[in-house]
Amino acid sequence: MTLDLHDDSPGKISVEGTVPLDNEDDLSRAYTPGVAEEVEAIAENPDDVFSYTVKGRMAAVVSDGSAVLGMGDVGPEAALPVMEGKSLLIRELGDVSAFPLVLDEKDEEELIRTIERVEPGFGFIMLEDISSPKCFHVERELTERLDVPVFHDDQHGAAITILAGLTNALEVVEKELADVEITIIGAGAAGIATAELLLEEGAERITMVDRPGIIHGEMDDLNDVQRDIAARTNPSEREGSLSDALEGADVMIGLSAGGIVTGEMVESMAEDPVVFALANPDPEIRPETAEKAGAAVVGTGRSDHPNQINNVLAFPGVVKGCIRCQSSDITSGMKIAAAEAIAAIVENPRPENVIPSPLNPDVAPAVARAVMREGEREGVCRVSVE
Amino acid sequence: MTLDLHDDSPGKISVEGTVPLDNEDDLSRAYTPGVAEEVEAIAENPDDVFSYTVKGRMAAVVSDGSAVLGMGDVGPEAALPVMEGKSLLIRELGDVSAFPLVLDEKDEEELIRTIERVEPGFGFIMLEDISSPKCFHVERELTERLDVPVFHDDQHGAAITILAGLTNALEVVEKELADVEITIIGAGAAGIATAELLLEEGAERITMVDRPGIIHGEMDDLNDVQRDIAARTNPSEREGSLSDALEGADVMIGLSAGGIVTGEMVESMAEDPVVFALANPDPEIRPETAEKAGAAVVGTGRSDHPNQINNVLAFPGVVKGCIRCQSSDITSGMKIAAAEAIAAIVENPRPENVIPSPLNPDVAPAVARAVMREGEREGVCRVSVE
Repeated sequence: MTLDLHDDSPGKISVEGTVPLDNEDDLSRAYTPGVAEEVEAIAENPDDVFSYTVKGRMAAVVSDGSAVLGMGDVGPEAALPVMEGKSLLIRELGDVSAFPLVLDEKDEEELIRTIERVEPGFGFIMLEDISSPKCFHVERELTERLDVPVFHDDQHGAAITILAGLTNALEVVEKELADVEITIIGAGAAGIATAELLLEEGAERITMVDRPGIIHGEMDDLNDVQRDIAARTNPSEREGSLSDALEGADVMIGLSAGGIVTGEMVESMAEDPVVFALANPDPEIRPETAEKAGAAVVGTGRSDHPNQINNVLAFPGVVKGCIRCQSSDITSGMKIAAAEAIAAIVENPRPENVIPSPLNPDVAPAVARAVMREGEREGVCRVSVE
Repeated sequence: MTLDLHDDSPGKISVEGTVPLDNEDDLSRAYTPGVAEEVEAIAENPDDVFSYTVKGRMAAVVSDGSAVLGMGDVGPEAALPVMEGKSLLIRELGDVSAFPLVLDEKDEEELIRTIERVEPGFGFIMLEDISSPKCFHVERELTERLDVPVFHDDQHGAAITILAGLTNALEVVEKELADVEITIIGAGAAGIATAELLLEEGAERITMVDRPGIIHGEMDDLNDVQRDIAARTNPSEREGSLSDALEGADVMIGLSAGGIVTGEMVESMAEDPVVFALANPDPEIRPETAEKAGAAVVGTGRSDHPNQINNVLAFPGVVKGCIRCQSSDITSGMKIAAAEAIAAIVENPRPENVIPSPLNPDVAPAVARAVMREGEREGVCRVSVE
């Protein structure tokens, strides 16, 4: 009974003091008049806010509750347990503080403005469970306006983890990213961000599939972001069904709905295909069926099968790295560095082991280190940490 | 050196986990898929958010940084150390969680809308260091719009603590609140809220003084809130200087600026006058001077003199009480109950001891209990806690 967890102390996180408050001296230091020194220091030099306040240790996990898990627009209150869960994972795995902020605002521009207004107290903005295509616009706009990293986890947490798993899976099947045909099922937040990151990392042949089949730039019913990725991945405006898209493909990345891929479709793929069936809780194809149909490596989102592609591998380390180096941004280079760090944790990739366990304590520190190094190289860190 | 506090771990608070995350089972419970049960429960019954999330344990300490300490409009980043300090005090004294939110928004209506949008994750909104008269409008409007208590600490924290101290001071000098002439110096947030609460509690003769002297409703240069309190406290439109206002008064409550009250003015007050000179760090009159001029009870805002009237006596217990009973409101009855509880901690009031020490650990629980009882009596609590 999950609900019992919270009977006595609601929620999954609390705010705790980190400085003493035992006597009048402590009170004077932590509050008035002592605090005036800090106020003055920051008023004079705004970047001091990172050194003297929680901004130097705190991420916000922000949602409007418009696309929560598979449950859709449940609103801000009902989204709160998820944002608390994410904050808990950042705390426990990433060893930095994170606070859930659920916002009662659906309008895109007002949502952007609201997040902009709360930003002064946070060193990192993680967006979560915001409906598509609003999530793309909100992230893009905030990235331009804010001087701290803005990271839509549903997009980039997924993309980083998939790139990590795919890197090791391709090593297992001895293929190169630049050569393989990749079919991504689901042109939502995760699918589009994954396509973008794979393109960035050198993939050249990606086919995106959504409900109407293979997508291309001249199709009806695509939003602006889907139209853009469709035009880039499918300049020849190839048309076809899901079956067509999988025929001859080396890699399937499913980010769609349970049970829509058959054994026959996997049989029609290239030799030694990689099948990531990541729909949750029911994957696009059952792992046993995919293996029987010849899949060389199978990954799912589930903990009861090998190769759990879970974005908890990515975001705690990404947040930790950015917070620690006081980054102003999270670049695609930093995301790729994060994926490489996750992949490198698995020393000898095998078909049943292309990705570390979600609770492997080595992952977040390694990801953080990689993110900081790349951030420093690209000049987006306010401080050097090594 | 206060600044040294934060070199290694910036800020005064951190976010910590309250549920385990040691294995896959914990992960499933605290995150997906377990969290879906909680999302569904809240989506079906919105008030469940208090039972299953941090909303049931968390206050927001909100500021736009427009009137920080005595330093004015320093902006949101520079206000953060103060909001963290308040959050720390709520944690340590009130034993509930509080989180600082500093908002980059000066426009009154936009500030109101922003706080309204962040409210879903909080069980209590404490406003702090917002300039006057904006603070009054923001509080009034949010109180109407939100289903959780909204409490501007600069107003009501001060008013409650002053009422508590005055209750015991009047016992010492054997006078009744309804009979005494009270002069309040400073018609800002604290002065006006104090006048309101004293009127509510039965005071009948209050004179408000600001820079131009005794204020009345037909004066120029008053804001709407000052005009209203001036009209109510001074219906005969009496005019006069600060000296005039203190002549014959039984009680002086200074919430203005250091050094503006002379020994002669105190000598002109009624027999056994009560002098609260609360300007910080320099009181309106030095305690020694006030005593020499005949003051029977002297209070200041300073820890190095007896009778420190510090609003840290009020807000941690008020927040705790409201959070614990899931109150929808903080009424003036609850504020008066809080003041009575603070006053009652001092068993035998004496001239040098009319108010408890700010760090007396008995105060916040007693205030919380009083606030909950009165809240329950007035029907603003969602749950009964006794």
